[in-house]
Amino acid sequence: MNIPASTKPRIVIIGGGFAGIALAKKLRNKNVQVVLLDKHNYHTFQPLLYQVATGGLEAGSIAYPIRKVIQEYKDFYFRLTSVKEIDTKEQKVISEIGDLHYDYLVIATGSKTNYFGNKEIERNAMSMKTIPQSLNIRSLILENFEQAVLLKEEAERNLLINFVLVGAGPTGVELAGALAEMKKAILQKDYPDLDISKMEINLIQSGDRVLNTMSEKSSLEAEKFLLNLGVKVWKNVRVTNYDGRTITTNTDLTFETATLIWTAGVQGAPIRGLDAKSLVEKVERIRVNEFNQVKGYDTIFAIGDIALMETKEYPQGHPMMAQPAMQQGKLLGDNLVQLISGRIMKPFEYNDKGSMATIGRNLAVVDLPNYHFSGLFAWFVWMFVHLFSLIGFKNKAVVFTNWVYNYIKFDREGRLIVRPYKKRSFTTFTSDEL
Amino acid sequence: MNIPASTKPRIVIIGGGFAGIALAKKLRNKNVQVVLLDKHNYHTFQPLLYQVATGGLEAGSIAYPIRKVIQEYKDFYFRLTSVKEIDTKEQKVISEIGDLHYDYLVIATGSKTNYFGNKEIERNAMSMKTIPQSLNIRSLILENFEQAVLLKEEAERNLLINFVLVGAGPTGVELAGALAEMKKAILQKDYPDLDISKMEINLIQSGDRVLNTMSEKSSLEAEKFLLNLGVKVWKNVRVTNYDGRTITTNTDLTFETATLIWTAGVQGAPIRGLDAKSLVEKVERIRVNEFNQVKGYDTIFAIGDIALMETKEYPQGHPMMAQPAMQQGKLLGDNLVQLISGRIMKPFEYNDKGSMATIGRNLAVVDLPNYHFSGLFAWFVWMFVHLFSLIGFKNKAVVFTNWVYNYIKFDREGRLIVRPYKKRSFTTFTSDEL
Repeated sequence: MNIPASTKPRIVIIGGGFAGIALAKKLRNKNVQVVLLDKHNYHTFQPLLYQVATGGLEAGSIAYPIRKVIQEYKDFYFRLTSVKEIDTKEQKVISEIGDLHYDYLVIATGSKTNYFGNKEIERNAMSMKTIPQSLNIRSLILENFEQAVLLKEEAERNLLINFVLVGAGPTGVELAGALAEMKKAILQKDYPDLDISKMEINLIQSGDRVLNTMSEKSSLEAEKFLLNLGVKVWKNVRVTNYDGRTITTNTDLTFETATLIWTAGVQGAPIRGLDAKSLVEKVERIRVNEFNQVKGYDTIFAIGDIALMETKEYPQGHPMMAQPAMQQGKLLGDNLVQLISGRIMKPFEYNDKGSMATIGRNLAVVDLPNYHFSGLFAWFVWMFVHLFSLIGFKNKAVVFTNWVYNYIKFDREGRLIVRPYKKRSFTTFTSDEL
Repeated sequence: MNIPASTKPRIVIIGGGFAGIALAKKLRNKNVQVVLLDKHNYHTFQPLLYQVATGGLEAGSIAYPIRKVIQEYKDFYFRLTSVKEIDTKEQKVISEIGDLHYDYLVIATGSKTNYFGNKEIERNAMSMKTIPQSLNIRSLILENFEQAVLLKEEAERNLLINFVLVGAGPTGVELAGALAEMKKAILQKDYPDLDISKMEINLIQSGDRVLNTMSEKSSLEAEKFLLNLGVKVWKNVRVTNYDGRTITTNTDLTFETATLIWTAGVQGAPIRGLDAKSLVEKVERIRVNEFNQVKGYDTIFAIGDIALMETKEYPQGHPMMAQPAMQQGKLLGDNLVQLISGRIMKPFEYNDKGSMATIGRNLAVVDLPNYHFSGLFAWFVWMFVHLFSLIGFKNKAVVFTNWVYNYIKFDREGRLIVRPYKKRSFTTFTSDEL
């Protein structure tokens, strides 16, 4: 990888997400050499991916160049690559661009979409964990409408303008709300020759409430907001298959749709090479102790979504969200410096600042540790918190400009098919039928 | 194409560029049915493509949804498609999504890159006429640097950070200036482990001056600005070939580079089906009379870059730029209404408002019909004119925000490889060498 030799201990960080970047910032100009690896050259602000998917924001507004973060850091290197494996005996990272020795390794690879083993759903559904995936969803939504206007057969048109979202966590809820607002404010006007009232947004949830990681009040209110926006909410329904056209469920319900967006679950994105015992099956997360140290290794750590720290309060690990990731990254920065200088490390304690979700214009729910509120004020809080969490002044300013414009004009001008998305399995129509 | 039958005459416009959109706006709620076809669902503001390519702006900031332009227009249809051919006998447009009868046809397909018949250059060079092409250039520039940091061999590194631009028209000059500024302000800091002083920006021009469509003063000043920024300007050199690694010229000069960006010429992008006599060879433009009527047809018109109107003042046709395109589109809107109601049409007269080019920060050249100026004030004029020419308030506001930020911070935060670009022919390195 062409990293210069150093007398200082080398820390290799895999992943520039919330956890990896928080750690990198803490390691700035410390007495270590740091190598940060990521398969993208930018950090992604994932909470706003749904706005990229629905044309409310441009991709560049929620991405930040990783090299810019570490621009002034000494003995600090970034490499754009995908890590294939870890060799824990030789203390080596094996990547697409070569091998690299580490003294300390931090795995911050985050999470990926969990299809619970269903390969057919995986093949036919869209997921939304990265910027390219969000742009694919944006293209597909718009392509569906462009195709629908060409069709004379109503059933075929409806297939294209029926959107099914599986999983009513924050991502599913926020995306459903955004689609409902697009329907009302934009698609109605953009496609006057289409009967937009036939457009459906179906949100399917296997549990008995939406936003099931939040308070019951939030769940109830979010559902009410969704219903008011025209979203069809299906609870206690588990999707069993999707062949690219028909969704089957564990009930009598079926859905005919060209577009299933799967936000029903995440799992860790681990790397090959660790002892099988350190991996927690099904969730694919790496078991760590209170210092985020991977069980069985002294010099390997895991932070963020990929790390599973079993505590009294969180017996299944912390929620896979930005907050625990950033807090773990920060603490590990301090702890590594401590460890290297032979001092004692501090155990991690999660400071839960609360959680929130937005459903649409003036509509959000906020759970603070001891207080819940919703509606217009919650929506302002949601915007404020997200705006100020973005890295960089330019992104804040551009997102703010977009939001003000979108709010005043009820608009989303990012409805652009810049890179067409070819859906693999949906080839019902031939050009003759169009 | 599923366009409803109408008693009104149907005008089909192919192309939503400057000419097509100007025409569409003029035909708003006139007593005609209009169908606008384009292969993108957005209008592109081409003069700022080079800023997208160099990370100064996001793609969405210089694109505008075509459906939004015509949202309120009655009996007005947009279809996303590529036109394959025209059947002038049957008065039909043959497209990927089916055929469509026209009463009046307007060809506004613009221009495409002209490689003057050299297939090998075409295969190996990058061009910059569309947003996807600009994003490819952006990805490739950044990928080159990410690859260069991995290499121990200086010659191989230099190959990757040597950028050769062929053609010193406005596009080549503006892109060269932007690259020179990136080198100084960004790449130096982003890649501290690379000797950025080795990065070269070579601008090759077959004629004896840069910006040869502008005044001699502008040419001289622009060249001086470029040299001050560190761009190497090669005049009277004609590129003869490029195999993906070595550029040969009509002189002894050769260039070793992984990246050739070709801005050396444009030609019309005509459609099959017109009489061969109406096409002007070499430039591939369609010969029109003073009403933009294609020679030999009563109901077919061509406007913008694709149209070649031979006048006393412009014996080779008007310059292939936004201004003549917009003016022709506007006038044809009026003329078609006149023609349909049996009234007389007005011949086109080009009102040359001048031309300008920016080279970099505080550096631009402006030619007004009777006046020339350059430097800081010219640069402000350039910015003002471009900002106000963008369609839509949101784009203006976001571009302005970006420009202010980029100016104050000497930065371009759009240096994101969102969609990696795989260069077809440059496979010198295997992973072992890295």
